Amino acid sequence: MKYNSYLSSKNEYSLSKYHNLANQLKADGHHVINLTIGDPVERTYAEAYKSLDKSLENRKISQYPSFKGKVPLRKSISDWAYRNHKIELDPDTQICSTNGSKEAVFHLALLFDWSEGQEIWAPSLSYPVYASSAGLFNIPFRELPVSRESNFLPDLDAIPVDEWDKCQIFWINSPHNPTSAIASKEYLEKLLSLAEKHDFLVCSDECYNDIFYGELPSSILDFPQSQNWLCIRSLSKRSHMTGFRSGALLSSNTELMKKILLMRPALGVGTPDFIQDAAIAAWDDDQHPKDFSEEYKVKQKIIREALEKKGFNIFGGEASFYLWFSHPQFTTSDQLMQLFIEQHLVLTPGTAFGQDGEGFIRMVYCSTLDQCEEIAQRISALNI
Amino acid sequence: MKYNSYLSSKNEYSLSKYHNLANQLKADGHHVINLTIGDPVERTYAEAYKSLDKSLENRKISQYPSFKGKVPLRKSISDWAYRNHKIELDPDTQICSTNGSKEAVFHLALLFDWSEGQEIWAPSLSYPVYASSAGLFNIPFRELPVSRESNFLPDLDAIPVDEWDKCQIFWINSPHNPTSAIASKEYLEKLLSLAEKHDFLVCSDECYNDIFYGELPSSILDFPQSQNWLCIRSLSKRSHMTGFRSGALLSSNTELMKKILLMRPALGVGTPDFIQDAAIAAWDDDQHPKDFSEEYKVKQKIIREALEKKGFNIFGGEASFYLWFSHPQFTTSDQLMQLFIEQHLVLTPGTAFGQDGEGFIRMVYCSTLDQCEEIAQRISALNI
Repeated sequence: MKYNSYLSSKNEYSLSKYHNLANQLKADGHHVINLTIGDPVERTYAEAYKSLDKSLENRKISQYPSFKGKVPLRKSISDWAYRNHKIELDPDTQICSTNGSKEAVFHLALLFDWSEGQEIWAPSLSYPVYASSAGLFNIPFRELPVSRESNFLPDLDAIPVDEWDKCQIFWINSPHNPTSAIASKEYLEKLLSLAEKHDFLVCSDECYNDIFYGELPSSILDFPQSQNWLCIRSLSKRSHMTGFRSGALLSSNTELMKKILLMRPALGVGTPDFIQDAAIAAWDDDQHPKDFSEEYKVKQKIIREALEKKGFNIFGGEASFYLWFSHPQFTTSDQLMQLFIEQHLVLTPGTAFGQDGEGFIRMVYCSTLDQCEEIAQRISALNI
Repeated sequence: MKYNSYLSSKNEYSLSKYHNLANQLKADGHHVINLTIGDPVERTYAEAYKSLDKSLENRKISQYPSFKGKVPLRKSISDWAYRNHKIELDPDTQICSTNGSKEAVFHLALLFDWSEGQEIWAPSLSYPVYASSAGLFNIPFRELPVSRESNFLPDLDAIPVDEWDKCQIFWINSPHNPTSAIASKEYLEKLLSLAEKHDFLVCSDECYNDIFYGELPSSILDFPQSQNWLCIRSLSKRSHMTGFRSGALLSSNTELMKKILLMRPALGVGTPDFIQDAAIAAWDDDQHPKDFSEEYKVKQKIIREALEKKGFNIFGGEASFYLWFSHPQFTTSDQLMQLFIEQHLVLTPGTAFGQDGEGFIRMVYCSTLDQCEEIAQRISALNI
């Protein structure tokens, strides 16, 4: 038996390492605040639980769920897309339910043939699953440099024309984890025209798109005419349903969706029927993500002011619940980590998302209001 | 974009094709009985729903589940294994929760390196996911012939000694879907000694192991000393929990389990916390699979007698809820399918599981007692 060499190169899913560090400090008796995971601690959209309870009422038998999602769920997702992005998608051929967005991200590369050296491209700072999927499948993975100067988006003009033909999947994640960067409509337009020209798929991971503080961020759904995108959505953040594992794949491209629907039955990722009922309630309502966003705005302000007083340079902050920042006195992420750990605040070093994150650190603020005030106090006490 | 060539070769997940046929006949107004899917229609183990309801009581927030399974769940699985198979497994290092067994089966090959032509071996009649996993990952897949003469188990002595080194994963499924064949303790012992000699992993898919009518079928768990197996279990059949998606991976081999625990966080297949609570109730009880087995025994008898009166040759039937049979007057599975469809009984042709199934047909009997009596009546009316 020879193990997948990618597994030997990895010690631990890199984000969970810092989560474990927080738990360790807690076990040592410290009053630790763990700000490493984007896992909201405030109320889940209440109608989702009600719908779940109702679905379970008097239920006595259990049957295999539809891997694709039951008809009313796909209809709800289609209606949501129309209400919010004015795109008409056929629930039967252009929408598929997923078990949250992580598994959908992970499995996507299986759709394609990689035998001719085709590559997966992603920003050099990214949700680690893009890289671990490529790594486990042994597919060439290209990191496109991002920096504060590029607004933490890959510079499309910096890529030589003859390189583009190697790309088969281009990951874009806007609003961006970890930086909260937002790709403009013009940026997405340019990317799609490159995708059409060079025949690659833009995989748009939009799980933070409904948590925003100004204008609704552009979405790949705003390009109904293009056949070169797949949109990945999730209820985890918009409805605080991380524990339900429910999301969706959407695309105008029915040929692509047909292949997805051929592939997914074998994966074993059908979402339990009663969870699908909860998901329907969540997609049917547009107000609660707005309410959540209002609350996050207040929380961000409290923390942002404390950070700015200490001289931190904060990037973005127009969407998602991540703050991404550096400090002129510190050059490495590890130094920043150390600084916060002294106050028993565990954050995630920028380098956990890629080497281009050096000198930055990410803080989540999907905490309670009280906790955000406590965090601000501890920031004020930082030894800086 | 070039799609995975495996997807072009497949039209549909082969088992769902016949399920769709049944739905079509229903839509045409026929009173169809669909006997294609092993999806119990009788009560789920009631304590599982109670435990689920209790877990949801007053729940207002939702958080990411542990991909590995919460501690009490792993403890329950470990205790179950000890009570039933006298094996001591450390819940922390030798057990992992899964989202049912299908995803666990599907992802398993990712554990290994396949760059040197290593192969996945499976019986020529098998649960289709072994082959579709190999196909989607582009791993050489070898079908080991099985037949009535070999008791529908691969003949281990028929494989030349120098071939064994090519094997990296050997799928064994006992009790066997679709035939209900059972591998004896001696068979498993021989297979494990080959695995030790030739350094491959025996992946034992045992999701039907707790539904049996005579002696408890041998399990790979009965070999605690060997380091060359992985056991895949599921609550779908034993507790009638197909709709919950919950199962487990167990192995004595902590090095193997360590790799599994390194791999699985990226897959996005954590089981919702409230489902884990339902699963705990199911693993904690050994009586309900015995009760279910008693009921299936009665149902099998009703159907078996009707089939035998019509001259069908039934194989096995000591475990699982599948009957696998042929008839001296028919040489192809398609002929048998046609015969039953005339009575609006939709079964699965043996060929759906592989070419060695030609001439056989599979019937599930996880129906209600009334329905089994109706099935028996329709069998009596077969034009034969």
